[in-house]
Amino acid sequence: MTAELICVGTELLLGNIVNTNGAYLAKKCAALGLSMYHQSIVGDNDKRLEETIRTAVKRSDVVILCGGLGPTKDDLTKEAAAKVMGRELKEDEHTRERIQAYMDNYVKSHPGTKITDNNWKQALLPEGAVAVDNENGTAPGIIMEENKTIMILLPGPPNELIPMFEEKIYPYLRKKQPEVIASEMVKVCGIGESQVETDISDLIEKQSNPTIATYAKTGEVHLRVTAKAENEKAARKLIKPYVRELKVRFGANIYTTDEDKSLESAVVDLLRNQDISLTTVESCTGGALSARIVDVPGASDVLKQGFVTYTNRAKRKYVMVKKSTLKEYGAVSEKCAKEMAKGGCFVTGSDAAISITGFAGPDGGTEQAPVGTVFIGCCLKGKTAVREFHFGGDRSKIREQAVTYALILLRECILENFERRNEENTK
Amino acid sequence: MTAELICVGTELLLGNIVNTNGAYLAKKCAALGLSMYHQSIVGDNDKRLEETIRTAVKRSDVVILCGGLGPTKDDLTKEAAAKVMGRELKEDEHTRERIQAYMDNYVKSHPGTKITDNNWKQALLPEGAVAVDNENGTAPGIIMEENKTIMILLPGPPNELIPMFEEKIYPYLRKKQPEVIASEMVKVCGIGESQVETDISDLIEKQSNPTIATYAKTGEVHLRVTAKAENEKAARKLIKPYVRELKVRFGANIYTTDEDKSLESAVVDLLRNQDISLTTVESCTGGALSARIVDVPGASDVLKQGFVTYTNRAKRKYVMVKKSTLKEYGAVSEKCAKEMAKGGCFVTGSDAAISITGFAGPDGGTEQAPVGTVFIGCCLKGKTAVREFHFGGDRSKIREQAVTYALILLRECILENFERRNEENTK
Repeated sequence: MTAELICVGTELLLGNIVNTNGAYLAKKCAALGLSMYHQSIVGDNDKRLEETIRTAVKRSDVVILCGGLGPTKDDLTKEAAAKVMGRELKEDEHTRERIQAYMDNYVKSHPGTKITDNNWKQALLPEGAVAVDNENGTAPGIIMEENKTIMILLPGPPNELIPMFEEKIYPYLRKKQPEVIASEMVKVCGIGESQVETDISDLIEKQSNPTIATYAKTGEVHLRVTAKAENEKAARKLIKPYVRELKVRFGANIYTTDEDKSLESAVVDLLRNQDISLTTVESCTGGALSARIVDVPGASDVLKQGFVTYTNRAKRKYVMVKKSTLKEYGAVSEKCAKEMAKGGCFVTGSDAAISITGFAGPDGGTEQAPVGTVFIGCCLKGKTAVREFHFGGDRSKIREQAVTYALILLRECILENFERRNEENTK
Repeated sequence: MTAELICVGTELLLGNIVNTNGAYLAKKCAALGLSMYHQSIVGDNDKRLEETIRTAVKRSDVVILCGGLGPTKDDLTKEAAAKVMGRELKEDEHTRERIQAYMDNYVKSHPGTKITDNNWKQALLPEGAVAVDNENGTAPGIIMEENKTIMILLPGPPNELIPMFEEKIYPYLRKKQPEVIASEMVKVCGIGESQVETDISDLIEKQSNPTIATYAKTGEVHLRVTAKAENEKAARKLIKPYVRELKVRFGANIYTTDEDKSLESAVVDLLRNQDISLTTVESCTGGALSARIVDVPGASDVLKQGFVTYTNRAKRKYVMVKKSTLKEYGAVSEKCAKEMAKGGCFVTGSDAAISITGFAGPDGGTEQAPVGTVFIGCCLKGKTAVREFHFGGDRSKIREQAVTYALILLRECILENFERRNEENTK
């Protein structure tokens, strides 16, 4: 079955709010195995609303509308939907009673409010429609079925829409939908998107079920393998060989197959599992690396200390960068990054330290090291690696890339250290 | 003129990402005085993409497409747009050279990467189209004009789309639009949105031209005064008395009337103008405060040092928090925040230090100090203020609020210090 989404509201067309309902409902429809090919946003205007609904009914099996069910004159979704479906609006007794009870309760907790007459507009329902009770507001949801079309109207506020969808609409649609969709995620770091796509172009070329989709993030590519089948188990079975193949192709560049796990969280896991304590020493990123690590709950297990040594003086005072290094090579140099990382380990007694020093712009930079030049150092159990990067983009983009590549370098060093130890043990 | 927006990408239809580009572009079109009646989202499918573009061209003067300009086979926006406009794709020499330069630079900073052939697809342009250089990626923006239709194609990644729109597309559209819209921004911090709205309800009630719109951000409210007129000067004249009135009402809570100035940037200005050096001492925010300060170009003038003292040990070792304080009051306490701020000043010799300690969750928290409790301390020239907060939301939301309120507290302390000095001088 195909589903189509129409979000109603002038505030969306003006960009005053971000359409999070759209993303929420799209995700739910995908989980239900409904194929979505179109989403539209239209304002509180009867003609354009009717036209948009008419187009949707022609091309999709399930049409979901959200927003515009409230009590004001601007709320026109129900009226337009009823017109397209050729139905009259009639008062629904059950809904009127529910609204009365809801309003009585509201007035009790907000003394001085009056129930305005326009609220009763919300008790009007298209003939033959099913009212879906709203536990968190007055406007009911509405379901209409006509021939092969299912039309669902939902209130706009997310705190009303989400519980209503989870508790009532999802189970309703689940029954209507014979097929199940399942997907698995493979997250790759340290390889560019076009490289990843080239590496799997043969798989993408022949894909039908499952499909593989790639999503690029800074320093990462996420691969989603999605399959359709009659039940979840059968779908998972279709996915499995593809995930196995991706693991073969991307090996250690895969940092997780867990949908919800971030790169920083994977790195914190690695540190914790191998009992490695960490210190960060940041210059141009100014604490953004440590902040990203602390974003992971339980990061205190591994993060011993963070230094933001933005000035030369702080680099010397706190992490023992040599005066001669700063003078001869400058703060943005391989040598300085190395000393920052080593110094970070030394002064704190951490097992590992990661350092970042670079020119994030817009000012600064030299002929040899223009804006975007960043040195990242990683000292782990006495071994120090430094890598030089030339990032593009503005100040914040350069810093974001520096943080991500610092995590990637740290991860690589931990994995190498692990392999080295393993080799030594097997000798 | 009317504008219509088409966002392209299967990831939007699957709900994997929220359509922030849609809100951004809608807001910009509104600011340009373009009327937007429709937005659509469509996947990476040539037929549906063409059909959607065809519908848009029929009903709107300006059609903006974003996404689907990348190097992969899934990227079909340019091909579909060219087909609808009846144009062939031809290689654009200038764009090819720009992509070559961009890729060379990329390879330099990412040794081992290869330029894959699919990248050259991005140098193909519809005949007669104008290439808009992309400073932050490979895919160029594209402008096509045909009779009364203006079609604009933009890359999907926000870090490419936003700078391109601001620097090149906005000025281009501004010239096409006969009526002028001007607006001014008044940014308020430290007062909640509903309080701000109440304080100006009389102005909002009677508004027509200019209008006042409020946008809530964490710890801040932005007020935009917008006027329409035949020319910029006339519009500015309409705006002026409103801005003056807002200044009277919100006084020192206004941190800037500069559209592009952020709270952190206003705070860095204050520090620089008054020659105050700063140290940050962060626990639960893990460096996010210093990172936000370093986000301001030239922050090195004022930020002496940042400490991420996430563990009790680091608090004692680096900023001299007393063992007895941690034992008796705990790390999340007024006393600890005070000692962190004082210690920050003492060990670095800074004029000011700002400290943050709290429970960001999901674990931690006590009966007296549940998750969301954050103490923020500010030591400035020997005087130390500590404030207690109880923030709602998840871990990242709590940390975001803590960082913003730390900036607000620092700003207040600097202003108070300034007033105190002024008073002393006039005595």
